[in-house]
Amino acid sequence: MLTLYDDPISGNGYKARLILRLTGRDFQAVALDILNGETRTPEFLAINPNGKIPTLVFEDGRVLSESNAILFHFAEATSYWPVDSFARAQVMQWLFWEQYTHEPNIATSRFLRQHRELTDEVTQQLDARKAPGEAALALMENHLSARTFLVADSFTIADIALYAYTHVAEEGGFSLSGYPSIQKWITRIEAVPGFRAMGDA
Amino acid sequence: MLTLYDDPISGNGYKARLILRLTGRDFQAVALDILNGETRTPEFLAINPNGKIPTLVFEDGRVLSESNAILFHFAEATSYWPVDSFARAQVMQWLFWEQYTHEPNIATSRFLRQHRELTDEVTQQLDARKAPGEAALALMENHLSARTFLVADSFTIADIALYAYTHVAEEGGFSLSGYPSIQKWITRIEAVPGFRAMGDA
Repeated sequence: MLTLYDDPISGNGYKARLILRLTGRDFQAVALDILNGETRTPEFLAINPNGKIPTLVFEDGRVLSESNAILFHFAEATSYWPVDSFARAQVMQWLFWEQYTHEPNIATSRFLRQHRELTDEVTQQLDARKAPGEAALALMENHLSARTFLVADSFTIADIALYAYTHVAEEGGFSLSGYPSIQKWITRIEAVPGFRAMGDA
Repeated sequence: MLTLYDDPISGNGYKARLILRLTGRDFQAVALDILNGETRTPEFLAINPNGKIPTLVFEDGRVLSESNAILFHFAEATSYWPVDSFARAQVMQWLFWEQYTHEPNIATSRFLRQHRELTDEVTQQLDARKAPGEAALALMENHLSARTFLVADSFTIADIALYAYTHVAEEGGFSLSGYPSIQKWITRIEAVPGFRAMGDA
């Protein structure tokens, strides 16, 4: 059986859980407490030298990490990965944009607010993420205003990757009230057959 | 013909130029000066709302951005993209690791040193990137110590993505003298048929 090293507080971990559920894979989850240094132990670093969850271990010992690489691997040859070559490239464009531009602002703000004391330094870190986080949401809003899903008007791993932290953006201090197209897109994702919520995946 | 919006100072732009050269595509390059705000003009934001280079425009007007998505698109169906499913996922793991963990430390340090005045604030930003940058290089060194290339012992877009800023890491203040396996890997990449150096791609 697959073993997923994960932390329930992580949206990146949720991406992995959701694609495994959607594609009907059995897996056992091993919860590691990021806040308690459990992803930085010698034992875990021997599995993933990058010391991050989600990390997936296959039955034969092969290891795969990076949430969006896990999404890609299990989506290949399913409807969550487009048949059209250019649409695949567009999915990848969104996945890289998520990790470089969206996650470091939206997800990190949520992490800081939920798990750090609001010192001056943390407040400064949150302030620095406000404008780029809003810009990321505005870009999504504009793109989704004329579309049902991010790519090719069908539900793909681009939607999973962006849903993971966008639907809890308010926990990071980003209100979605000014982003009606994002809200409708969230509702559409939650109606996808087999969908599981973050706490239930 | 393809149009590549690019800035010669960018390693991310170099990735796009190199894969286009390696796969024999004709393209015209349009140089935008990042430092001069040329990626933030209304004209360019109409092409790529994320305001970043490299951005590729196809003859029919379709647009693709994110350097690693461009690598993926042109590598599909070539030897730079593995046939084996798990090896493909490993390539993706390295591409996401590059954008999240390597580039923000190694590439950003190079940018700050080359294009910003060394104020206290910039020095602080450089200091903050020192330990995670060295950790990224150490992870690569350890991985490459027993391998010829990053994935499946063949030259893939994972090598292109990591080569782009690793081979100029010293310009960001990261000496490669303590990383002999990385140095050998750089030499191997520069011997790949069709390889073009950063200033020549």
